[in-house]
Amino acid sequence: MNGEHTWSEIQSQGHVWQAAVSRASEASGPLAEHYRSKQYTEALFIGCGSTHYLSLSAAALASEMLGLRARGLPSSEVFLFPKAVLPRSGQPVLVAVSRSGETSETIMAVDLFKSSYGNETLTVGNYPDARLVKACAASIIIPEGQEISVAQTRSFASMLVAIQVLVGTCAGDRAYLEALSALPAAVARLLRDYTEPMRKLGADDAYDKYIFLGSGPFFGVASEGMLKMKEMSLSHSEAFHYMEFRHGPKSIVDKRTLILGLLSDSARDQELKVLSEMRGLGASVLLIADRVPAGAPADYTVELGTGLPELARLPLCLTPLQVLAFSRSVSKGLDPDNPTNLTQVVVL
Amino acid sequence: MNGEHTWSEIQSQGHVWQAAVSRASEASGPLAEHYRSKQYTEALFIGCGSTHYLSLSAAALASEMLGLRARGLPSSEVFLFPKAVLPRSGQPVLVAVSRSGETSETIMAVDLFKSSYGNETLTVGNYPDARLVKACAASIIIPEGQEISVAQTRSFASMLVAIQVLVGTCAGDRAYLEALSALPAAVARLLRDYTEPMRKLGADDAYDKYIFLGSGPFFGVASEGMLKMKEMSLSHSEAFHYMEFRHGPKSIVDKRTLILGLLSDSARDQELKVLSEMRGLGASVLLIADRVPAGAPADYTVELGTGLPELARLPLCLTPLQVLAFSRSVSKGLDPDNPTNLTQVVVL
Repeated sequence: MNGEHTWSEIQSQGHVWQAAVSRASEASGPLAEHYRSKQYTEALFIGCGSTHYLSLSAAALASEMLGLRARGLPSSEVFLFPKAVLPRSGQPVLVAVSRSGETSETIMAVDLFKSSYGNETLTVGNYPDARLVKACAASIIIPEGQEISVAQTRSFASMLVAIQVLVGTCAGDRAYLEALSALPAAVARLLRDYTEPMRKLGADDAYDKYIFLGSGPFFGVASEGMLKMKEMSLSHSEAFHYMEFRHGPKSIVDKRTLILGLLSDSARDQELKVLSEMRGLGASVLLIADRVPAGAPADYTVELGTGLPELARLPLCLTPLQVLAFSRSVSKGLDPDNPTNLTQVVVL
Repeated sequence: MNGEHTWSEIQSQGHVWQAAVSRASEASGPLAEHYRSKQYTEALFIGCGSTHYLSLSAAALASEMLGLRARGLPSSEVFLFPKAVLPRSGQPVLVAVSRSGETSETIMAVDLFKSSYGNETLTVGNYPDARLVKACAASIIIPEGQEISVAQTRSFASMLVAIQVLVGTCAGDRAYLEALSALPAAVARLLRDYTEPMRKLGADDAYDKYIFLGSGPFFGVASEGMLKMKEMSLSHSEAFHYMEFRHGPKSIVDKRTLILGLLSDSARDQELKVLSEMRGLGASVLLIADRVPAGAPADYTVELGTGLPELARLPLCLTPLQVLAFSRSVSKGLDPDNPTNLTQVVVL
């Protein structure tokens, strides 16, 4: 089968997320103690491609749960335009997210950060012997998330879950940590119930534009959904904040557009209005929600059914989108394991 | 002719930018004095659609020139997810950018900001009697930038130039302000020399994917170029930070891809390498540079020829992209004055 590695990496997530929870829980105690001993003025999350999108959701999470000024940035912008993005004062902490731990731009950004602010650095990744592990003061590594495929799936989720555990531990939020411990079983159930519907939808030739919408902490996850669709299936795919989509981009909506909407709790009503408007313009909608509201403006639905708060369920929203991208790829005769033009690590 | 309003709005920019320089210079003296009397801990630039993209470039500018922590945010995220994006301490200043001054989301974000941090607010726009002018403590208004068209062209540039003048004045940077005074003549020259080449390129059916690349302060401008192409011509168009494009998105590059590259000074060598790689994958490249380097990897070039520093020449890079989007639209039989699905102001 085309894409056998990607397929097994997507399907193994119950086990891998469990490992992420365990490893991050173990590492987070001392890290949280260190966090409390410092007066960080802000947190900078950096990455490239998928991990840049991860950094956007991570920053929203840290900001909400720790009350800490936080930003997600592309690693390249940090070392190419430091004055445009880095603070001139205070004591920031840097979190460098990288599957391989070998991405040149992230290593260069870490080196630059250390020269300006000292070694208040943490890396989150999947390979214990990586250069970033050596370069940073601390690390959370989940080897179970390693992948043969180029496109990140379980590695991404493992790093996101690890950061959720870390932030929850630093916040001392026991209810949140309890919620996170429910994620491995939830993703296993999700894969069992929704793999077939997502395969079927991915095989549907009715659509040629895929628009991923997510607000607040969901924007980074929506962006990663967009990237999976692009890398694996070479389809026209874009991600927007829900309400931003109205300000111009919606001009391209037509009957061959599928909108993938990740529903939050905080902005639920506004988000449903946007989806309803897009259906009025001819688009179809796949709604991913914890509970699908009665009469929701959707042609397809994924109901997570966890009862978890929005900041806990972030990674679950991505899983059906991974299956969808995989299926679209195979349906177009492509090989998800070998995305066009790409390699696993970008080394300059 | 289809698009006569948009056309005359694009072509009138020499005059409009001159008005922007004058009006912003007049307003900036007292604003800079107020700025110096305050100890702002950061600046938040907000907007929707085009003005959100403007806010990204404005934040990079403020960060570099004032050493002030600065962010560009969508207005909607500020009021839907305040805890994910707003600081819990310190005294931020808010700059609300809006052509009409009537955009609901921006008004709601300003109201929320004021309730938390007091009325340290400034609006930049084109209509003196707008609700945002009444809601904010101060304003810079350039009525000459008003438009009949839905898609922002001269209004966008007028607001960007105004913010450049403001930041330059707050920084007390006389050389920079001198450089800005050269922009109106430079844009008139650019329109004279490059309107025909851009019309010709826009009429070329060889391309069906338009990728806009810009790093640092150029990213917001590249994003606005992307939005013009989308709104006016309904083409597949996306914007990325140069080096981010390598991490996945480049999978979609083929012979029908036109890369629009905005060349900075700071990251010039890395940017040229990315463009060269994309040509190797089959894409064509339009390079927009102040001076086009010998042997540059480009199929088409726009040479601004100003000798101005990168932070001054930002709005110039957008002008040829406006003409290109206009021409692509007309060439596809569309009407640039009436983008599909859109209205001039989004009022909720």
